[in-house]
Amino acid sequence: MATTLRDTVAASTSPPAILEEAFPNSRKVYLEGTRGIAVPMREIRLSGGEPPLRVYDPSGPAGHDVQRGLPPVRARWIGERAVEQLEVDQSLGAAMPGDLTRTVLRGTGPVTQLYFARKGEITPEMEFVAIRESLEPEFVRAEVARGRAIIPANINHPELEPMAIGRNFLVKVNANIGNSIVSSSIDEEVEKLQWATLWGADTVMDLSTGTQIHETRQWIIRNSAVPIGTVPIYQALEKVDGVPEELTWDIYRDTLIEQAEQGVDYFTVHAGVLLRYIPMTANRVTGIVSRGGAIMAKWCLAHHQENFLYTRFEDICQIMAAYDVSFSLGDGLRPGCIADANDEAQFAEPQTQGEHNQVAWRHDVQVMNEGPGHVPMHLIKENMDKQLEWCNEAPFYTLGPLTTDIAPGYDHITSAIGAAQIGWYGTAMLCYVTPKEHLGLPNRDDVKQGVITYKIAAHAADLAKGHPRAQEWDDALSRARFEFRWEDQFNLALDPVTARAYHDETLPAEGAKVAHFCSMCGPKFCSMRSEEHTSELQSH
Amino acid sequence: MATTLRDTVAASTSPPAILEEAFPNSRKVYLEGTRGIAVPMREIRLSGGEPPLRVYDPSGPAGHDVQRGLPPVRARWIGERAVEQLEVDQSLGAAMPGDLTRTVLRGTGPVTQLYFARKGEITPEMEFVAIRESLEPEFVRAEVARGRAIIPANINHPELEPMAIGRNFLVKVNANIGNSIVSSSIDEEVEKLQWATLWGADTVMDLSTGTQIHETRQWIIRNSAVPIGTVPIYQALEKVDGVPEELTWDIYRDTLIEQAEQGVDYFTVHAGVLLRYIPMTANRVTGIVSRGGAIMAKWCLAHHQENFLYTRFEDICQIMAAYDVSFSLGDGLRPGCIADANDEAQFAEPQTQGEHNQVAWRHDVQVMNEGPGHVPMHLIKENMDKQLEWCNEAPFYTLGPLTTDIAPGYDHITSAIGAAQIGWYGTAMLCYVTPKEHLGLPNRDDVKQGVITYKIAAHAADLAKGHPRAQEWDDALSRARFEFRWEDQFNLALDPVTARAYHDETLPAEGAKVAHFCSMCGPKFCSMRSEEHTSELQSH
Repeated sequence: MATTLRDTVAASTSPPAILEEAFPNSRKVYLEGTRGIAVPMREIRLSGGEPPLRVYDPSGPAGHDVQRGLPPVRARWIGERAVEQLEVDQSLGAAMPGDLTRTVLRGTGPVTQLYFARKGEITPEMEFVAIRESLEPEFVRAEVARGRAIIPANINHPELEPMAIGRNFLVKVNANIGNSIVSSSIDEEVEKLQWATLWGADTVMDLSTGTQIHETRQWIIRNSAVPIGTVPIYQALEKVDGVPEELTWDIYRDTLIEQAEQGVDYFTVHAGVLLRYIPMTANRVTGIVSRGGAIMAKWCLAHHQENFLYTRFEDICQIMAAYDVSFSLGDGLRPGCIADANDEAQFAEPQTQGEHNQVAWRHDVQVMNEGPGHVPMHLIKENMDKQLEWCNEAPFYTLGPLTTDIAPGYDHITSAIGAAQIGWYGTAMLCYVTPKEHLGLPNRDDVKQGVITYKIAAHAADLAKGHPRAQEWDDALSRARFEFRWEDQFNLALDPVTARAYHDETLPAEGAKVAHFCSMCGPKFCSMRSEEHTSELQSH
Repeated sequence: MATTLRDTVAASTSPPAILEEAFPNSRKVYLEGTRGIAVPMREIRLSGGEPPLRVYDPSGPAGHDVQRGLPPVRARWIGERAVEQLEVDQSLGAAMPGDLTRTVLRGTGPVTQLYFARKGEITPEMEFVAIRESLEPEFVRAEVARGRAIIPANINHPELEPMAIGRNFLVKVNANIGNSIVSSSIDEEVEKLQWATLWGADTVMDLSTGTQIHETRQWIIRNSAVPIGTVPIYQALEKVDGVPEELTWDIYRDTLIEQAEQGVDYFTVHAGVLLRYIPMTANRVTGIVSRGGAIMAKWCLAHHQENFLYTRFEDICQIMAAYDVSFSLGDGLRPGCIADANDEAQFAEPQTQGEHNQVAWRHDVQVMNEGPGHVPMHLIKENMDKQLEWCNEAPFYTLGPLTTDIAPGYDHITSAIGAAQIGWYGTAMLCYVTPKEHLGLPNRDDVKQGVITYKIAAHAADLAKGHPRAQEWDDALSRARFEFRWEDQFNLALDPVTARAYHDETLPAEGAKVAHFCSMCGPKFCSMRSEEHTSELQSH
């Protein structure tokens, strides 16, 4: 078994696509901070006397051996905190290569970013984020202290390049990966992680089910420079053979600890699915569509007891505080269709999320709130407004929203429309949707389509929010376009190789890439070319 | 030459994809009105005791011989109006088969839909539209009379199935086709027309340049059940060998008449690019990006005279009134990048468009106004608000808007985000953008991607506007999804074959299409399946 897993991963260690292949004329550069901080950026070299453009880059180090994992860039910072080393449970992850095993830490005192922020301390993680987003470190600290931003950064994830989720930061994108019973394998998941971050995913959720959840997650975390999120109830459910009624607090608690010790950065916890909210979904067109929500609803109804994630919420906070795992409070009652949008059930849960935010903050645990699903455009803003009010401005993390139900196969687009809007209104992170949503599991190309579509939505939101550095990218590309610097235009694109390929379908000759006409109009009359002449005429 | 053209078209008469292939379990049905009116709808047959769903269908009759063209369904209605037959200019279109030649009509008195609407007369075209959109004929008449909707319907386009463009109607989608010097041919253009309307394009603009413009357009109009729009200055420019300075009113006037006699339903006329507006673009990042705008700017500057489309606007109205060609007043100064959005130049032109609307209306000519381009989300609504005010609620017809510049290759998505929003705010028709925008000419698949993406934007806007019949489609699909009627879910999709193919990638077995679990979660635990159980539990 062990060798099988190693072999399948080893067979795929050839990099899925390195940065320089996906982004010609780009290279990774590092901005230095204090305390050994080195913040990665992607620098795009341009022609025509234009300065290079540096853009945010979550792709992480490349070219390393995935059987050894990434270098522990945070190890020294974490080592200086109040932590103790724990014994590793040898029964877990027996199928992993020894080089992926790490020392396991637990806080002996407060270790969360929120704790330090409130104390007035600017951690290396905060400084890292500040450099990454061109902000003042003190601003980052204040936003974290206020609960308006989080820096998901488990002390057992030293490989992490810290990032922030909050509405006064760049809008972030999460990509889901994860095998399931019907498809996929560990090596595919590690490759999807690298692939998703290459295109710009800022965090990755591992939604694996089936056997080998622990091993899959270990491979992913050890090779991830971005925060990893999970839904621990999925693994707990595997431990009771998929029968929700048999879930217990003890099984769930052990699962939380297992995952916290492994280095998961944020947990989705469906603590807001209260027993009394479940009947609110009875007359819905699509009932409960959140998997975690449905699991907890089934448990509640079977036992006719309150959701144990709610009754044990303080216990959960204590566990998460000891490792600095952040909450992503689940939206188990999100609407699964346009007809169910903004109904009683959907708006019951965020009020409970708001109460839980206060509890988490009392424990110095960082927290964000999950939202939307299927919501038509005119009902989107109400979700944001209520979340800001009820959840006291904690970061909002939304799936889409999908703005219509009629386009399965194109739900990356139905949802990007909603995601861009809710990002503009203040949502801090957008959970991507791939073309396979509702239909099947995303493959490599679906992951890429989903991430790029959501980078578009996030960037459109950054522009609309007036993020001070967002527009320089658009301006650089538009100048290249107007000056017929075709290569620069391709290289500045979110997906340079595709842009170039589309151009070459119409005008394949190399000469056409320096031609002073565009491939739509041809050489005889092109509006951009004419405009150059116009400018000349004006100066005469 | 003649035979070459005929042969290339003949070789492609096999239908590009008939309705029943693209939309399994769908068939075309006709709703009857008075006066022989037969309004096409696509009826989707469902299982599980669900009634069939009828959806709007602009695909037109199928299976006819494209060398003979479509049946002239409007011929009798037009014949009853004040029209005279003209001699056909034999020098034009010599390369066309005789069966594509039609009688040419001109009004001897008022013949426009606006004229009849103001007189209080409900034309067959208005009744057709009313049935098509489930509205009262009198409401359609009133909207046309008010200038808030247009029914582009040249008296020389008897093959047309009438449709309305107005903000109290379903949001419409235009697809651009057209060859250029560097690519494409006539047969490809006819096939693109059929292909674009199959997927839902409500109007098609023929933007052909190069030689054979007249012939290409004849093939297109004679085979089109949707309104055809053109930019006549493109053909006028061909007549002066592509040198804008040599354009004259006489050449342009003759081109308008030529196209009006052929049956073009609406003309883009860049009459708002005034000499004094051109310097406003001097400091822009991307200057003038509208091709028509750049042509007129060049002409104005070369002659240092006012735009002849402005000085001759009354003459243009008289020509268009005689055939009921509608205006699409061009936005020659639309912004070509985020940096130029909502600048002085962009907001100068719609004020002139507003003046021209009044002139057109005095001549009983129907009119809509073109707008946007590249506009970040927070600046979109201002465009709609100003258009409503300055243009007195005439229908707004916008390109996108594209909400960021950084994603060439994905501009169908950058623009669908903006298109959905401006559609919600009140834009009546959205001009599609394909993945090839800025890069090359769209091929067959690009046209499909562009149309489907824009159908999503338009439908999302219809939902957000609260169009009374929009949501029934979403509800039908969502019920199918919740009840695991997979075949119905596919068949109700905007692109059923793709939805089914995506599903089958994960679960190819036929049995999986009746399986009561979804292809994401697998048989063991699926939230939708669990919800079914939940409902059972609740009833116990």
